[in-house]
Amino acid sequence: MAKQHLDPAASPVAGDALADYLQAQATEFLRALRVHREGGGTSNGTPESADAARALRRSARRISSTLHTFRPLLDADWSEGMRPELAWLSGTLAREHAYGARLERLLNALNRLSGAATTAVVPAQSKTLAGRATAEPAANGPRTPQPTADRGTLTVGAAKAGALLERQLTLARTRAHSAALQALGSSRFHAVADSVAVLASEVPLAPAASAGKLPPLAAEAEGRLTDAVAALPLLTAGHPYNAAALVHGLSADTAPQPQDAPWHQVRLLLRLHRYALEVLHGHDPADPRLRSAGQALNRHRDAAEAASAAASAARTPRIAPATAYALGVLHADQRHEVEAARFAFQRAWSRDSVGTG
Amino acid sequence: MAKQHLDPAASPVAGDALADYLQAQATEFLRALRVHREGGGTSNGTPESADAARALRRSARRISSTLHTFRPLLDADWSEGMRPELAWLSGTLAREHAYGARLERLLNALNRLSGAATTAVVPAQSKTLAGRATAEPAANGPRTPQPTADRGTLTVGAAKAGALLERQLTLARTRAHSAALQALGSSRFHAVADSVAVLASEVPLAPAASAGKLPPLAAEAEGRLTDAVAALPLLTAGHPYNAAALVHGLSADTAPQPQDAPWHQVRLLLRLHRYALEVLHGHDPADPRLRSAGQALNRHRDAAEAASAAASAARTPRIAPATAYALGVLHADQRHEVEAARFAFQRAWSRDSVGTG
Repeated sequence: MAKQHLDPAASPVAGDALADYLQAQATEFLRALRVHREGGGTSNGTPESADAARALRRSARRISSTLHTFRPLLDADWSEGMRPELAWLSGTLAREHAYGARLERLLNALNRLSGAATTAVVPAQSKTLAGRATAEPAANGPRTPQPTADRGTLTVGAAKAGALLERQLTLARTRAHSAALQALGSSRFHAVADSVAVLASEVPLAPAASAGKLPPLAAEAEGRLTDAVAALPLLTAGHPYNAAALVHGLSADTAPQPQDAPWHQVRLLLRLHRYALEVLHGHDPADPRLRSAGQALNRHRDAAEAASAAASAARTPRIAPATAYALGVLHADQRHEVEAARFAFQRAWSRDSVGTG
Repeated sequence: MAKQHLDPAASPVAGDALADYLQAQATEFLRALRVHREGGGTSNGTPESADAARALRRSARRISSTLHTFRPLLDADWSEGMRPELAWLSGTLAREHAYGARLERLLNALNRLSGAATTAVVPAQSKTLAGRATAEPAANGPRTPQPTADRGTLTVGAAKAGALLERQLTLARTRAHSAALQALGSSRFHAVADSVAVLASEVPLAPAASAGKLPPLAAEAEGRLTDAVAALPLLTAGHPYNAAALVHGLSADTAPQPQDAPWHQVRLLLRLHRYALEVLHGHDPADPRLRSAGQALNRHRDAAEAASAAASAARTPRIAPATAYALGVLHADQRHEVEAARFAFQRAWSRDSVGTG
């Protein structure tokens, strides 16, 4: 069959929906960038600039995902050049936020495990709980579980583990912040911003863009998702307390666990599917099943990375045994969170698909 | 109302069932004692003498429980004098077995967590897996997870944690063994054995023993059980991954956790109920619900004690941080086993009581 070269004007629906979506996201990107710059570019400064950084990441992810899913409908050279740049940008911006969130998750868990807090959630920027009663100067920190006089070594271990994690993750966050600032001032970033500015006014559609091609491409994205989900060990995940996530919890490879990879992959494919639906519908269809499945996979990723951070902190030279013990408990706790997140995903996914699968 | 002084001969059913049961258990006790003595009294010697020790504990528990539940039907002075002696005996005999089982549970868990074993279960008396490749002489031991050359500090930590637990629990087990041998040679034990021998031939029933009193007393035992179960946090326990068992996992009080006590109490009450049913029916009615509920509570107790042993080992002076880390992971793992056991109990208990409660 001859390759079809349709006149773009002949495919108003596909072009319109796709162009409208990309233009809206590009406009949002530029708006967030303006707010972020007005806030001095320091995303840990004001809530506004933190929101702006989040909005920047959000629209960068959507543009990048849309370029991927609907690639055949867009100018190939342009979209293939732009995608890695957007991935670089959102990755760089995400890192600072991730370290902050990881620290908060780990300190909340330590508080819960220490029985210190009846309210387990500690405000992220709280400066009120300074660990001044601690004998160890190194254990001082704004969000460290605080041992009282009659507590034993294990609680001191929790406090020191909290202080160690706080030092390490705050340092990582500060570095990520500098890297993000540097990225936003780079010529590489300005080239991305220019491309997005072009996108906001004119989307370079491919000649092959036709009305009928949007739904099949979205369906392909959904197919990749359902295939990847079908390959997950959902039978195990749906059986509570299967203890699968902590297998290899003490093996030498504490870098990202291989067993987590397929779940992380499904998380990305679920996101691509959701954004493809947004393109089709012109808005987030707000499917509660996808929403809770996505939340479970975010929790899975966060807990896996927190567990890894605890294991990594335990390899710090010259830490006290009590600190290492607390980090071990914390690691296992977060790996059980990983297991719990898989269970939650299995529940969310199977709930509404009964009878359709 | 005047106190009833019935002729024992007027209550053949109650007297018969109770006397038959106690006599059978007493006979079993004496048989097990004979086998145990023929085996040299060393319960870690032959499988036969280990079985005999188990049978001794088993019948001592049943006699003691029966004296408790059906107290009003038995001679008060005699049964009140005998119960603490039987409790002392079965407690003393149980300790050696408990330390061995605890060590096996912890080493199996360490193997699982190290990803070392595809088959997680290590035979209790296996001498085949000597950790000769380990750099640490202290880490050598028959059932210790074995690090290979390319494994990191964390796996070495698992091996050292295994070796430490093996040393500590083997020592405790050896002491318990000596204590059990000493107890079996004591005049206190001979007095118990004499009482059981009397019981085997003649059960001292109270004048109040009447046909109708066996079921109400058994019902009272069941009532105490159902009341205690009703006070358990079953709503939480039935919600998978509630993370309740690890709260206070790092608090100073690593001695038996207060939150475990009501579950341990239900375990004892469930046993009293089961033995009362044995008296009523003349045999174990083999109720699958009671069986799985009881198994869940045994698992709860074993995991709670194993978690406590891991926490206790972590307080050994001068251990390496990697060892402490592994013990922390292990502690948390066993506390999650505690949580899993509560979930299993909740499932077992509620399965058949739907509509009857």
